[in-house]
Amino acid sequence: MPRIPIVENILHANQILATELRQRLDTAAVYGINLMASPGAGKTTFTTSTIKRLKEHLRIGYVDGDIATTIDAEKIAVLGVPVVQINTGGNCHLDANMLNPALDQLPLDTLDVLLVENVGNLVCPANFQLGTHLNVLIASIPEGDDKPYKYPGMYRGVDVLILNKIDLLPYIPFKLDYFWQGVEILNPGLTTFQVSALHNEGMDEWIEWLTQRRRQSI
Amino acid sequence: MPRIPIVENILHANQILATELRQRLDTAAVYGINLMASPGAGKTTFTTSTIKRLKEHLRIGYVDGDIATTIDAEKIAVLGVPVVQINTGGNCHLDANMLNPALDQLPLDTLDVLLVENVGNLVCPANFQLGTHLNVLIASIPEGDDKPYKYPGMYRGVDVLILNKIDLLPYIPFKLDYFWQGVEILNPGLTTFQVSALHNEGMDEWIEWLTQRRRQSI
Repeated sequence: MPRIPIVENILHANQILATELRQRLDTAAVYGINLMASPGAGKTTFTTSTIKRLKEHLRIGYVDGDIATTIDAEKIAVLGVPVVQINTGGNCHLDANMLNPALDQLPLDTLDVLLVENVGNLVCPANFQLGTHLNVLIASIPEGDDKPYKYPGMYRGVDVLILNKIDLLPYIPFKLDYFWQGVEILNPGLTTFQVSALHNEGMDEWIEWLTQRRRQSI
Repeated sequence: MPRIPIVENILHANQILATELRQRLDTAAVYGINLMASPGAGKTTFTTSTIKRLKEHLRIGYVDGDIATTIDAEKIAVLGVPVVQINTGGNCHLDANMLNPALDQLPLDTLDVLLVENVGNLVCPANFQLGTHLNVLIASIPEGDDKPYKYPGMYRGVDVLILNKIDLLPYIPFKLDYFWQGVEILNPGLTTFQVSALHNEGMDEWIEWLTQRRRQSI
């Protein structure tokens, strides 16, 4: 079975491209954020809420990765920020090779922050660095409290964890202790936030942290 | 880029193995069901509820596919049915090559139904037939009403669609018309059920249909 070496080659090639992409972002002084999540965790609602707040004082660009359609990109475009759609045509994740030409379509030199919404998937995107400064995972209450244990690769590889849809806690069996215990085992000391992007709960803390983190990195 | 031909080779090899696997199931008179869903759609709760009802009059075997852990398999094992765990070690889907040795661990000749719970993923499992008689997709209300449009490969390729967690409809913006319209475009005339596996709503209709369908196939 020749599959494993081939996958390793692809990952290595991706890492080289991701490093180049990071240099490109750094040269343009753009802070890059890779948003990853399961399908339906609320990535686009969270992104919309984040952009609405950030764009009061920062210039934002947005890249949407999806298997098909421009549904999410259209929701973001109405906010008046430059948007590029990547349709992966069935591929289960974005990689640096897809993101590079997308950046050509953005006015990179006039941006402060680049938000990249990855394909909805808790497995594949974890293996492909995009060269962004921050890897963010959005989990959500309806997904269940066992997800850190079941998708360790994703939970281990991120810099920030957002637990979204906390407004649904009263209606769903979800043990917060068990969830956060799993997170702590896999990614000790991880920066985390509990939010309801739909109801604008907890978003201030996230935006404040993000703004400060970006300021420290440039 | 050599990736696409390689992927095609893998899919072709998988199809051959899936055909063999189907023959193996048919010879043993076992009705195979491949359950696919996004992480957190409620696959294991749905499977538990299904097995509890089916095992009153049928002999069930269960194979659990996961990236890591035996959390789901342990939940099913307490029901007293034979269980096999496949840990894919990071792979985003089951394939026929993984399922075949799992069947060796089951008393296949004494079973009537084989339930296979695939890795939680709305992208990759759609491409890999397992040789089962029925491909079932479990969607859920919290995932959002746009999922058929965004994950057409998965919605197009299944024989049955279960819309789970309907008890959460009052708390989440979800347009049922928009969802079912997308399903109908991609997979006209698809057999569908609306259920809450957690609260045992709608499960009777599904079990009745499944029992009848199995009877017709053997």
